[in-house]
Amino acid sequence: MSSSFGRVFTLTTYGESHGAGIGGVVDGCPPGLKLDEAVIQRELDRRRPGSAGIAGTSRCESDAVRLLSGVFGGVTTGTPIAFHIANENQRSGDYAGLAEIWRPGHADMGYDIKYGLRDYRGGGRSSGRETAARVAGGAIAQVLLAARGISVSACAVELGGVSASEYGAPEPFGAEERPYAAICEEVIPVWERLTAETRSAGDTLGGVVRVEARGVPAGLGEPVFDKLDAVLAHAVMSVGAVKSVEIGSGREAARMRGSEHNDPFLPPEEDGLPPRMASNHAGGILGGISTGAPIILHCAVKPIPSISLPQKSVKRHGEAVEFRVGGRHDICAIPRVVPVLKAMTALTIADMLLRQCRMHVVPGGTA
Amino acid sequence: MSSSFGRVFTLTTYGESHGAGIGGVVDGCPPGLKLDEAVIQRELDRRRPGSAGIAGTSRCESDAVRLLSGVFGGVTTGTPIAFHIANENQRSGDYAGLAEIWRPGHADMGYDIKYGLRDYRGGGRSSGRETAARVAGGAIAQVLLAARGISVSACAVELGGVSASEYGAPEPFGAEERPYAAICEEVIPVWERLTAETRSAGDTLGGVVRVEARGVPAGLGEPVFDKLDAVLAHAVMSVGAVKSVEIGSGREAARMRGSEHNDPFLPPEEDGLPPRMASNHAGGILGGISTGAPIILHCAVKPIPSISLPQKSVKRHGEAVEFRVGGRHDICAIPRVVPVLKAMTALTIADMLLRQCRMHVVPGGTA
Amino acid sequence: MSSSFGRVFTLTTYGESHGAGIGGVVDGCPPGLKLDEAVIQRELDRRRPGSAGIAGTSRCESDAVRLLSGVFGGVTTGTPIAFHIANENQRSGDYAGLAEIWRPGHADMGYDIKYGLRDYRGGGRSSGRETAARVAGGAIAQVLLAARGISVSACAVELGGVSASEYGAPEPFGAEERPYAAICEEVIPVWERLTAETRSAGDTLGGVVRVEARGVPAGLGEPVFDKLDAVLAHAVMSVGAVKSVEIGSGREAARMRGSEHNDPFLPPEEDGLPPRMASNHAGGILGGISTGAPIILHCAVKPIPSISLPQKSVKRHGEAVEFRVGGRHDICAIPRVVPVLKAMTALTIADMLLRQCRMHVVPGGTA
Amino acid sequence: MSSSFGRVFTLTTYGESHGAGIGGVVDGCPPGLKLDEAVIQRELDRRRPGSAGIAGTSRCESDAVRLLSGVFGGVTTGTPIAFHIANENQRSGDYAGLAEIWRPGHADMGYDIKYGLRDYRGGGRSSGRETAARVAGGAIAQVLLAARGISVSACAVELGGVSASEYGAPEPFGAEERPYAAICEEVIPVWERLTAETRSAGDTLGGVVRVEARGVPAGLGEPVFDKLDAVLAHAVMSVGAVKSVEIGSGREAARMRGSEHNDPFLPPEEDGLPPRMASNHAGGILGGISTGAPIILHCAVKPIPSISLPQKSVKRHGEAVEFRVGGRHDICAIPRVVPVLKAMTALTIADMLLRQCRMHVVPGGTA
Repeated sequence: MSSSFGRVFTLTTYGESHGAGIGGVVDGCPPGLKLDEAVIQRELDRRRPGSAGIAGTSRCESDAVRLLSGVFGGVTTGTPIAFHIANENQRSGDYAGLAEIWRPGHADMGYDIKYGLRDYRGGGRSSGRETAARVAGGAIAQVLLAARGISVSACAVELGGVSASEYGAPEPFGAEERPYAAICEEVIPVWERLTAETRSAGDTLGGVVRVEARGVPAGLGEPVFDKLDAVLAHAVMSVGAVKSVEIGSGREAARMRGSEHNDPFLPPEEDGLPPRMASNHAGGILGGISTGAPIILHCAVKPIPSISLPQKSVKRHGEAVEFRVGGRHDICAIPRVVPVLKAMTALTIADMLLRQCRMHVVPGGTA
Repeated sequence: MSSSFGRVFTLTTYGESHGAGIGGVVDGCPPGLKLDEAVIQRELDRRRPGSAGIAGTSRCESDAVRLLSGVFGGVTTGTPIAFHIANENQRSGDYAGLAEIWRPGHADMGYDIKYGLRDYRGGGRSSGRETAARVAGGAIAQVLLAARGISVSACAVELGGVSASEYGAPEPFGAEERPYAAICEEVIPVWERLTAETRSAGDTLGGVVRVEARGVPAGLGEPVFDKLDAVLAHAVMSVGAVKSVEIGSGREAARMRGSEHNDPFLPPEEDGLPPRMASNHAGGILGGISTGAPIILHCAVKPIPSISLPQKSVKRHGEAVEFRVGGRHDICAIPRVVPVLKAMTALTIADMLLRQCRMHVVPGGTA
Repeated sequence: MSSSFGRVFTLTTYGESHGAGIGGVVDGCPPGLKLDEAVIQRELDRRRPGSAGIAGTSRCESDAVRLLSGVFGGVTTGTPIAFHIANENQRSGDYAGLAEIWRPGHADMGYDIKYGLRDYRGGGRSSGRETAARVAGGAIAQVLLAARGISVSACAVELGGVSASEYGAPEPFGAEERPYAAICEEVIPVWERLTAETRSAGDTLGGVVRVEARGVPAGLGEPVFDKLDAVLAHAVMSVGAVKSVEIGSGREAARMRGSEHNDPFLPPEEDGLPPRMASNHAGGILGGISTGAPIILHCAVKPIPSISLPQKSVKRHGEAVEFRVGGRHDICAIPRVVPVLKAMTALTIADMLLRQCRMHVVPGGTA
Repeated sequence: MSSSFGRVFTLTTYGESHGAGIGGVVDGCPPGLKLDEAVIQRELDRRRPGSAGIAGTSRCESDAVRLLSGVFGGVTTGTPIAFHIANENQRSGDYAGLAEIWRPGHADMGYDIKYGLRDYRGGGRSSGRETAARVAGGAIAQVLLAARGISVSACAVELGGVSASEYGAPEPFGAEERPYAAICEEVIPVWERLTAETRSAGDTLGGVVRVEARGVPAGLGEPVFDKLDAVLAHAVMSVGAVKSVEIGSGREAARMRGSEHNDPFLPPEEDGLPPRMASNHAGGILGGISTGAPIILHCAVKPIPSISLPQKSVKRHGEAVEFRVGGRHDICAIPRVVPVLKAMTALTIADMLLRQCRMHVVPGGTA
């Protein structure tokens, strides 16, 4: 089931860029959680161009979500929660010229070879628009997490090679309200200039997103293949533009000595509390299991492949072609990817939370 | 099923460091493949200290694998292939002093909190020894891949912050026969010196492993959540020491412009062949689907947490403690991790190969 | 994922009796199959009261299906196929009086205890209306099966204890066009009289449905836990009213000697054809794997629990109550269950067909 | 994963009749349960000929189980529990003559067509011997269930068409200690005579097994596709010889009126207890969810296909053949199938118990 994610708290999605709409089904959500369309809409709106400053696309998408099942009297019932987001403003005509061309950096070739045919309108199923269903599903996951005191946030820390850390102190909380979801206020004008220059040059930019989850209890994650970091890596790497994922110290860990990288445990501040850690190189996960420290990951996002410059490619039957991608496109995926990576992280932790509960089924058996 | 990996070609593993042994069951392997214990043993032997030069552990493990089912007359029958590797040389006594201590950088705390108890002998289920079952399963996957012309190789490209690229030209093929599975011959004496110094200092090292899969046909990988890169990231990040995974240009992609990062398609060299790509920043995967180009990934491996230096930590009930890990341990996980990451990559591609076959079930339907 | 069925060809459903609507997502359907709403609507219409003679409910449901994704240019694309059936004629008021009462024979108690709350309008998720999504999914499965020469049919063979075999010769083909989907014409007036009498008495009836699949190639079904008959039993028993399932000779097999029950193989009629079987007590399945003979199963359907007679029960907090189910209800589930059992059988065989294809992935490896 | 059963409490099995042995891996078992080899051996011994009177086979199998992982200090650790049962007394020679013949009533044809080859020694993977791994896994499930006050028992109620109910009052408890696991003492001599006569005639017998689970809390089972009865049907029908499954009133339900079949709820005997039911036609399951009443199912078991009489069949390439099955075989599968059906029921309920726990993850959320 390639369009499903999760084992207990699961999201199944459907939909194409220029079809009737996109949507999904969340199965396995516990009953009794307050849920309405507004909670989901708020997250979806963060994925929209408006909140993303000039980095965003000029397309106007309203992305109005409708709940179709699983909620009664304002609370979840434990049965599948379906939602649908109708497509609007579908100008398939913009894409007709691309029906035969395999655009570099896009999934066109893969779909054509995998399936023998493809819905070429705006990328079809491979469009970034698919991620709206992830954001909606993630919003439902965040309702469950909030009921357990867990919060997830995400922000941009680098754009086009320009790191925010050179411009201001990190303020990850509130980042989602800033342009680019930038980790600090100071870097925004720099990124805006870079975005404008890149737009003029007909080119596009990549960046780096940081995701943090707080309040995750120690003990989540499954040994061996479904380690918490492994499933998080799966989750965020399944977002089209992501090319790397780092947990905690990440790539830098390879350069550290064991004596530097090991996070010492400290006694708890008070009896009854869990031990603390003197540092968090592990990014909140040891041996695939959460430690109670914040879970921190970084994802590299590649530049958007739809550039305005002319490109060389081939048609599906091998003929060489030089072409230009028409339509209006984003310069950088970062503003839209931030809520998607937050959503995927929330979906993963929600699933792991429910997978862990089985441990307590034997009365008095375990901690 | 946290101890199972794959959807169609699946590996389920079991076993602890100091129990009766470790092993696994491969289910979903097609019939008719030549398979015997020697093919599996060859890969297992690469995971052993002997082939890893002075970087390896001083423990002597014979890791003799025994096939228990699924093979008849020298070929696979299509039924589950079980294998067992008996543990030898189990000196649990070495670990008894650690029963109550949570070792920094290890999974001790996570297991204790998750399960309320743990097998503390040598890490129990969280021991690196668990990876022997992955290597055995991966060896079976490689038999399937070889029958389809697909090969997977892995090598070390950096150790303790020293990159091999500064010392010699990359020669990934044959790397597995070299000490450290080094990507070039020239770096080996440098790494040997660094390893010796680090051992004297009572410390440990991390590194970076590169994995490459050749001959993977275009079209593998599933849209949305089970993109080929997402499942590969899951696979390699599930190996205990891995802290980052990069596909193709990886972290560097975030710094490139779209016009740089896009890999142009070129017409096929001959009619009937698939198109080529002028570069491979994508690392052989676009939109989550293989392109036919080599699949390339890099994994950062953290330094081994079992250092010989004294460390501060706590006991499971919160009491502060200063201790030293006894026993003999590796300085660097790289030599043992290389065949494990190769195995996880092979398991992933084998599964995706079998998941793709469903596309052809309608006669004349698809390419 | 309790609302998903299948491993490769999967159906995920959602929806309640009196919510916005019901629907589902089919994932894993191969590309290139002709599919439109009319094909699905035809099966859905069979589930409607109109085609079921006087046995049906008096509620008028139009059950108009809308395809939301996965089809482009009139053919499936290989991506998820979502469909939605809006609810109409929702008179929740009819049910308000039942919010607190646990109706005998219904799922009310189970849902209240399992979830701590329930959508009591018309049974909510436990309503028979949920089966419309199965019928829609099954219609898509039947498109795939038809492309491989496989057909599934279903009919009623017994109603209220009156077996059709006493009234006429079995003519299973075309049964779906008859009232009650009766296996023969002659029994219809008898069943109509019985239905009318039972309605007058304020009571309800059960019956037996026979399902047959023709053209299923030998070799489908997985050894051990996912035997074809095991998954078929799962499939049909998941339909609310079904209380037994029999494969081939079924319950009668227990009374036969081995020499009677064994189906002798006969040489093929022509070279190149598979062997035949002199009888089909096995119902087309041996050792969990299809034999190429017709697959035949029988399901007992319990009488509808919503009777018009007064009943004794309790309220959710334990208080005794005597009540009468209001609203208009079916006398017998048979006419509506027939297309549902056909759909579940089709979904199972479609999934098994796609699961089998992996066997052929090694060139020249297997038959 | 056709050799795995369950979603949270899972059993994966392997092994052939005449290979190295059979075994399995239980993943998802909670930690802290007392478990040793003796508990498993006791159930395995019930599957052995010795306890089955003259109905059993003359082969002597010791079936000694060995635990390989997942237990430390006498309790489960939460990690995978592997076990192995070595094969002994493998006289493959007895079967060599059958390598080319498709035995009627056996899986030979299916395996040959499915896989293109098969391990013909004693049925290979399709041998009844495979069920030893189910019994071992079921024994582990029963340890979990016992810790929650749930017990499962099974017994024979009919043999060769002779129903025990005509000879004595049902005494299901203790049945497993009687020959044939007969539901009453009185029928045993009748069945013994019938078995002896059938053996003399070179023929074999079928029968009916009744399974009952007591103490199952209300609320287990998942709506829609994974109803408790649906998964139980899957579980028991996956046992080779089973041809029908009935829940509660089963086949008879189709002949009852709604007013007869509905089980009235009665107020609880005391405050705080759940309501009772005046009857149990539902067999402990309503709408796919357990009611708290005993879960009762009946399974028809076909006669053993290996008869001593000459049979007509074909060779794998289509040539007609008359042959006789050599070796020593059981007359009736019942004595061996009883513990297997008990095990499958226990595995199902254990899994459903762990699947239900997710409901309680939101503090104060649900009952």
